[in-house]
Amino acid sequence: MSRLVMKFGGTSVGDVERIARVARIVAAARKPGQGLAVVVSAMAGETDRLVNLARAAGGEGGNGAPLPAREFDDEYDVIVSTGEQVTTGLLALALRRIGVPARSWQNWQAPIRSDAAHAKARLSSISEERLGPSIDQGVVAIVPGFQAITEDNRITTLGRGGSDTSAVALAAALKAERCDIYTDVDGVYTTDPRIVAKARRLEKISYEEMLEMASLGAKVLQTRSVELAFAHRVPVRVLSSFVEPGAPNPGTLVCGEDEIVEKQVVSGVAYSRDEAKVTLLGVEDHPGVAADIFGRLADANINVDMIVQSEARQEGRQNIVFTCPDRDAGRAAETIEAARGKIGVEEIHIRRDVAKVSVIGIGMKSQVGVARTMFAALAQKGINIEAIATSEIKISVLIDAAYTELAVRALHTAYELDAA
Amino acid sequence: MSRLVMKFGGTSVGDVERIARVARIVAAARKPGQGLAVVVSAMAGETDRLVNLARAAGGEGGNGAPLPAREFDDEYDVIVSTGEQVTTGLLALALRRIGVPARSWQNWQAPIRSDAAHAKARLSSISEERLGPSIDQGVVAIVPGFQAITEDNRITTLGRGGSDTSAVALAAALKAERCDIYTDVDGVYTTDPRIVAKARRLEKISYEEMLEMASLGAKVLQTRSVELAFAHRVPVRVLSSFVEPGAPNPGTLVCGEDEIVEKQVVSGVAYSRDEAKVTLLGVEDHPGVAADIFGRLADANINVDMIVQSEARQEGRQNIVFTCPDRDAGRAAETIEAARGKIGVEEIHIRRDVAKVSVIGIGMKSQVGVARTMFAALAQKGINIEAIATSEIKISVLIDAAYTELAVRALHTAYELDAA
Repeated sequence: MSRLVMKFGGTSVGDVERIARVARIVAAARKPGQGLAVVVSAMAGETDRLVNLARAAGGEGGNGAPLPAREFDDEYDVIVSTGEQVTTGLLALALRRIGVPARSWQNWQAPIRSDAAHAKARLSSISEERLGPSIDQGVVAIVPGFQAITEDNRITTLGRGGSDTSAVALAAALKAERCDIYTDVDGVYTTDPRIVAKARRLEKISYEEMLEMASLGAKVLQTRSVELAFAHRVPVRVLSSFVEPGAPNPGTLVCGEDEIVEKQVVSGVAYSRDEAKVTLLGVEDHPGVAADIFGRLADANINVDMIVQSEARQEGRQNIVFTCPDRDAGRAAETIEAARGKIGVEEIHIRRDVAKVSVIGIGMKSQVGVARTMFAALAQKGINIEAIATSEIKISVLIDAAYTELAVRALHTAYELDAA
Repeated sequence: MSRLVMKFGGTSVGDVERIARVARIVAAARKPGQGLAVVVSAMAGETDRLVNLARAAGGEGGNGAPLPAREFDDEYDVIVSTGEQVTTGLLALALRRIGVPARSWQNWQAPIRSDAAHAKARLSSISEERLGPSIDQGVVAIVPGFQAITEDNRITTLGRGGSDTSAVALAAALKAERCDIYTDVDGVYTTDPRIVAKARRLEKISYEEMLEMASLGAKVLQTRSVELAFAHRVPVRVLSSFVEPGAPNPGTLVCGEDEIVEKQVVSGVAYSRDEAKVTLLGVEDHPGVAADIFGRLADANINVDMIVQSEARQEGRQNIVFTCPDRDAGRAAETIEAARGKIGVEEIHIRRDVAKVSVIGIGMKSQVGVARTMFAALAQKGINIEAIATSEIKISVLIDAAYTELAVRALHTAYELDAA
């Protein structure tokens, strides 16, 4: 018996009609000798409704002071996790109605376990002891995504959007041949099709590339799920849940680099507008000052991305530029401000109207001149580069946010990604 | 440590404001040396919403043929049971917000078990192994009513309204000193206050009397929960959830007969309009005919109540009159009709505009003349009695439904139940 895991998000199961459609997609995917497990999200809107109830009872916005997280999050998980449970039952019924044997499996029934970090838990183990044999008998297993139970038998949720991770982890536990993630797009594109009309769907993309794409703002798959797929070597296919059941729906396969024969130098262009640039002018230039600054930022839980150091005009001083998520910029400045005397910083500036644009490709590893193409393409459009960061398979530049679309289009053309 | 179980129904937890109020009631009930467990229903309206979703997916009213019960009920339970789970989390948060340690306990966490009769399961065992010590440490345990899990670890529901039963069973398992059922009335009354303005709240009522009241249409407590309380000798108090938290709220105590010092001959007058009278004329009069008729009705799952046999005018024939719930009357007639030739029945009549009025009291056991008072009071108002049934603590009469209120008021006065 081989096994396949399928995953459907909140929009795909948004009402009973759509759930019936998902049932037909699952029915069409059945074939002899293959067991099926389906991971489902809560119906669209349902999680928000439950979150609001929980908040009104014990969080922000209700009467009285909000509870601290340690007194709020465990019961929040009890409340919010019911959303997916409802979908599991509904899909099981919809499948049975069209003659497909199916049953729901709640986390405690499998069990599917996580650590005890309520509201943002990480999966720790999935037992296939009960699930596996049932699937192999031809009964489709419906599993709620985004949740688990602790060793102590409390309910957890994985943080919003954790259903992709649930599906990949389940596929790994079941030793499934593949994990199919059904979503509202029909695959992974060379870039955002809303910006570049000539963006192309990729047939295959490597885990590393997908990781960069995911973490750089392409919202098709969650970063954590790609990491997990990479670690366990689970092939993941991203495909549309809105194609007629049974009709061609190739999607994009996320797989190991070795399975990609023709390696693109650049597979995709990603961008993120959720960036801020913090400039520290006149920082004392002595050993350990950078470690001090970035240590303080790390302690404040601020995710620093690009870092550029340069000499200042004044002797014995330097300038430091770094980027972080836009929402953290104020806190970053406060953190530095609070230690200003100790660190020795003359001026702190924040710039919020910046964007990060990146080109990604595993072919980069063995190719020279990739960066030159990028800088030339941007220069030709008169776009100024404010900072640069590179990895083995990625080059990112920070630019004025107003030029984001222009930059993405120019790079898409420069790397010959445009569809014919 | 003593223990107390409290139960709040769907109206009492209808929204987050009301749940906050329930939290204040629970907080006011806390006292040193006493552990608390609280059983909650789904928020009013929530169960209906979930039932409708389940039906749309696999039951009546969706697309395609409805699933048979054996393929529908297990997943129906998965869906519908989420309603109470949400309330457990919300109440735990509301309690913590006012400084009361609390946590939710789902059935699988305790565990609380039932048989496998999905959608109408009966509780089989409640483990106090984990619940008990937590309660004794002063952490209020919030438990979802109306549901359980099977030996096979599937989710069940107890059928609608089963939360009272959950509460009483939990009280028995926890060896609680009492089970307090908070509801939208402030106790058990001598009769329906909507009919008799002078109806009085009873301070105490025996299990047997309450059983008769419950099964005769007084909807304060479910029959099954009273049976269970009786069997396990759990004192049950019915009281209002709309009294200011901490204010006097004596309610009615349902307890053993031996705890009631002054036994009333008649404690209450109950009535039921959900009755139909089926008359079979010219039934062949030979041994076994009654067994045949009522055997067939029992096989058709029709709950026959009063039975009156009388000689017919014709030699060798008799008339049989029985009552059953109004909704079953058509089916009862069909069942007899189908076997008409075999049984030998000349005519079948159904009368639906009848009502059953009953007087109930444990004092009846040792008192003569109770029936005479009843018949005299009804005769005085010109009310004709169509059938009579008695038990040790109850006398019921079947009358024209139009006289229901008149009869109830007359009996309430005749037995000196009117408030001063």
